[in-house]
Amino acid sequence: MTNVMMIGASFSEVERDRLKTAFNAGFVADVTDLDSLSVQARAETAAVAFKGHAAFGAAAMDLLPKLGLIANFGVGYDAIDVEAASKRGIRVTNTPDVLNDDVADLAVAMLLAQCRNMIAGDACVRSGDWAAKGSLPLNRKASGSRVGIVGLGRIGREIADRLAAFKMDIHYHSRSEKQTPGWTYHSDVVSLAEAVDFLVVALVGGKETLGYVGTEALAALGPRGVVINISRGTTIDEAALLKALESGIIAGAGLDVFLNEPDIDPRFRALDNVVLQPHQGSATTETRTDMALLQHDNIAAFLAGRLLLTPVN
Amino acid sequence: MTNVMMIGASFSEVERDRLKTAFNAGFVADVTDLDSLSVQARAETAAVAFKGHAAFGAAAMDLLPKLGLIANFGVGYDAIDVEAASKRGIRVTNTPDVLNDDVADLAVAMLLAQCRNMIAGDACVRSGDWAAKGSLPLNRKASGSRVGIVGLGRIGREIADRLAAFKMDIHYHSRSEKQTPGWTYHSDVVSLAEAVDFLVVALVGGKETLGYVGTEALAALGPRGVVINISRGTTIDEAALLKALESGIIAGAGLDVFLNEPDIDPRFRALDNVVLQPHQGSATTETRTDMALLQHDNIAAFLAGRLLLTPVN
Repeated sequence: MTNVMMIGASFSEVERDRLKTAFNAGFVADVTDLDSLSVQARAETAAVAFKGHAAFGAAAMDLLPKLGLIANFGVGYDAIDVEAASKRGIRVTNTPDVLNDDVADLAVAMLLAQCRNMIAGDACVRSGDWAAKGSLPLNRKASGSRVGIVGLGRIGREIADRLAAFKMDIHYHSRSEKQTPGWTYHSDVVSLAEAVDFLVVALVGGKETLGYVGTEALAALGPRGVVINISRGTTIDEAALLKALESGIIAGAGLDVFLNEPDIDPRFRALDNVVLQPHQGSATTETRTDMALLQHDNIAAFLAGRLLLTPVN
Repeated sequence: MTNVMMIGASFSEVERDRLKTAFNAGFVADVTDLDSLSVQARAETAAVAFKGHAAFGAAAMDLLPKLGLIANFGVGYDAIDVEAASKRGIRVTNTPDVLNDDVADLAVAMLLAQCRNMIAGDACVRSGDWAAKGSLPLNRKASGSRVGIVGLGRIGREIADRLAAFKMDIHYHSRSEKQTPGWTYHSDVVSLAEAVDFLVVALVGGKETLGYVGTEALAALGPRGVVINISRGTTIDEAALLKALESGIIAGAGLDVFLNEPDIDPRFRALDNVVLQPHQGSATTETRTDMALLQHDNIAAFLAGRLLLTPVN
């Protein structure tokens, strides 16, 4: 018998093996596959190890009458209806902090790569165009720029700390003003966008931040402005972003997240002023192992009746 | 009449116009074109504005009997035979410092891009492979690594300062030990390579550093090691580097400089563990303008009999 169920096609083989060994965990690829399980298997499920971005709502929870824990793989748990979970006495955990460095690294890397036209640079050398056609147009200086962080949580702070070493003038917008070393607080995102060259979005996902960076902020960022998004596709009004990128309202973007991943809007793929990444923020061997271990430890703590390590509700 | 001669096909139109307006400067595309000038034009040339990597040696200097200044566009002046210039009473200037930020930015950007497999990431999204074939293999964490800077001059220092913000353990090798904040000095490059994951080469070019990072250092860096080079193609033994990259002696590289640019060894172009850039270290609009102005100011100071701003000899 098993009382732990893995849900998520994105669990790697190593991750599945680890949870199977530890908890004799069962597996379904998707939340929608839960009703294919036997009544007994569903009845026994006390904890879910969850990975992915498909919605995990009230109806799915009701298929698992003994469910007491949803342990999410990832810091963002916007796919899980936490309110519905709380109502049912289901605890939710996530994997914060262990991925902050990686996500911040990728944010800085996308900013630099966009600024310095590195995708085109690599292609120019690799194709032989450098010798055949000469140098690329001059690119743009990154160090010393003004950067605005949207959401100065733990990841936003890590991004700002790195960019400060590039002598950037740091501005930020957050629910409240923070204790920061000479950084400039903006009480709204449009004022922030107006003040900076680069806008780095590090918000949490979910309903509250849906379309948080919209038409007005993009217009305020302006034709020299570049947007970096390592949060969720939902935090930027994607229709407005595509229009801004296609029509020169802003200069470019570095995007690791999109709506409908991985089946993203094909208009992104035609843009040459954008660095595109396949949601790789935390996708390093080191960090994914740390995330898996934290998910494992939350499940083990729950099953043993100990305090959860990183509870959400 | 003109007493200033521009030499270098790589001068942009804007740069040529600026020097022509300021000094009524003449132009030849290459040092080897000097003998095509009239005897009078050569006799009048008191200062050369130089740009490029073709050799400027004693024979060329002797074609310009009144030459008193070679003002190089760029911090690296290894193309100019400074000893020959000094013997002839010719002063040489370069454009240091104004490009440190850009070069350091690109070094960090290549390190991150290599680590996080960003070139493949962009291609995966852009081609539609993300949706069709799924995620890429996990990549590698950058923050918290051990990094070794080869040559802790002004640019090396800027690189180290940036990487320190990524919580990296900084090691360096330099002619002498420096005052540094907790960084580890190595008296030879092999010991440095052995101690680190990433080896960032920030040496000056020229004879003294020819093949400075060679077979032994690459072997010491090892199969998890990554080389970043933003200095000159000459500072690494390129045959040894290609062999190391092709055979797994090291894990990968980020290279902005090569032998025989832009007509580089085609073996580089076949490597998928390398981020390639077309010598873009200082290639931003902002910095190239600053470099041009510093070259201009050195020429103006020389012609007016004032102190040179950034003399080399």
